[in-house]
Amino acid sequence: MNRKKALVVFSGGQDSTTCMFHALEKYDEVELVTFMYGQRHALEIDVARKIAEEHDLKHHVLDMGLLSQLAPNALTHDMPIEEDGGMPNTFVPARNMIFLSFASALAYQIKAGVIITGVSQTDFSGYPDCRSNFIQSMNLTANLAMDEDFQIETPLMWRDKKETWAMADRLGKLEYIRENTLTCYEGVPGDGCGTCPACELRNAGLEAYLKERGNDGVLSNPGS
Amino acid sequence: MNRKKALVVFSGGQDSTTCMFHALEKYDEVELVTFMYGQRHALEIDVARKIAEEHDLKHHVLDMGLLSQLAPNALTHDMPIEEDGGMPNTFVPARNMIFLSFASALAYQIKAGVIITGVSQTDFSGYPDCRSNFIQSMNLTANLAMDEDFQIETPLMWRDKKETWAMADRLGKLEYIRENTLTCYEGVPGDGCGTCPACELRNAGLEAYLKERGNDGVLSNPGS
Repeated sequence: MNRKKALVVFSGGQDSTTCMFHALEKYDEVELVTFMYGQRHALEIDVARKIAEEHDLKHHVLDMGLLSQLAPNALTHDMPIEEDGGMPNTFVPARNMIFLSFASALAYQIKAGVIITGVSQTDFSGYPDCRSNFIQSMNLTANLAMDEDFQIETPLMWRDKKETWAMADRLGKLEYIRENTLTCYEGVPGDGCGTCPACELRNAGLEAYLKERGNDGVLSNPGS
Repeated sequence: MNRKKALVVFSGGQDSTTCMFHALEKYDEVELVTFMYGQRHALEIDVARKIAEEHDLKHHVLDMGLLSQLAPNALTHDMPIEEDGGMPNTFVPARNMIFLSFASALAYQIKAGVIITGVSQTDFSGYPDCRSNFIQSMNLTANLAMDEDFQIETPLMWRDKKETWAMADRLGKLEYIRENTLTCYEGVPGDGCGTCPACELRNAGLEAYLKERGNDGVLSNPGS
């Protein structure tokens, strides 16, 4: 494994794009992997592809449509659900464990010694497989599974959104991330719809950071 | 989670069918999960379905065709490979980790507290993700991923093939397993082709066990 080569789990959102810039600063080689599943995938994938292309990075897009087989109604009816547009927004447990299993296997194939994921325990999502204890255990499990020495790096684990914006700024990428990433549940890139929970979290963090930095009031026109 | 309900990772081969009978003896409820992928899947799935039906067990068949996205040639050409019949026999790392991640998520959905897999460190397959250390780490990882208390049970971990046949016999199922399971690389059920590595291992174990039990020479006509 090449310890100077990183594979970034990449959705095209604020967090994983910040991780991408972090990786570009720290490692000699960077590749991206995006997991495609569920209803919102088309727009998210477009955003992710655009960012990958703009930075000339190899971008692996893995179709995870089979996750729908684990949704409760698929199990109840004992048949797969339509993958395109038909998947209801049902809870699939351990989704991040499944994604990191695939990311680890991909890292093995491309000889990347480092896997980077933007999960955060501070802005706790409610998913236990985004917590630090899980990541440490997952890392050990992946290493034992392949007899290798991968490192799963989580640069955002203990950062809140304000601190993630500060990191983006330190990397010189605050404006790029603000304008080009997609976090909004309504599918509005950039500052987003401004009212969904994802926008509220993202924009409150940005506002707090900009206030601290001395640019008060920048978000007075969200969505601009 | 129901600690008297077990989900058996089930291929229709000797080992996982022995695990199925073990589960039927030990647990109140048993369900089976089969992972469908690669070239040989059609016949294996038929055998697995038949055994599941004969024992009136709920049988989850999960399509893992997307594993082909992790095969080296898929990565090289940067596109998915045909799933049906077109998948070359290329190594996908951490396959068992990926399968156990899915099995754990499925166990969560069906509220099975126990996941049973027939991996064995004794008849070492060369895959690190079949070893005991990996299974223990995987178990902890799955529990952390879902904040639950699953037990991954590996009744064959320290048995060689002779001891697995002895277990089948103790369960009263030696003849059933001998006649109805598929282990042979050539796709011949029962005693198989007799010459592929899987048949050699299976039949040598059976012969050794039957000799010990006092049925010398039963395998003088392999394939009968």
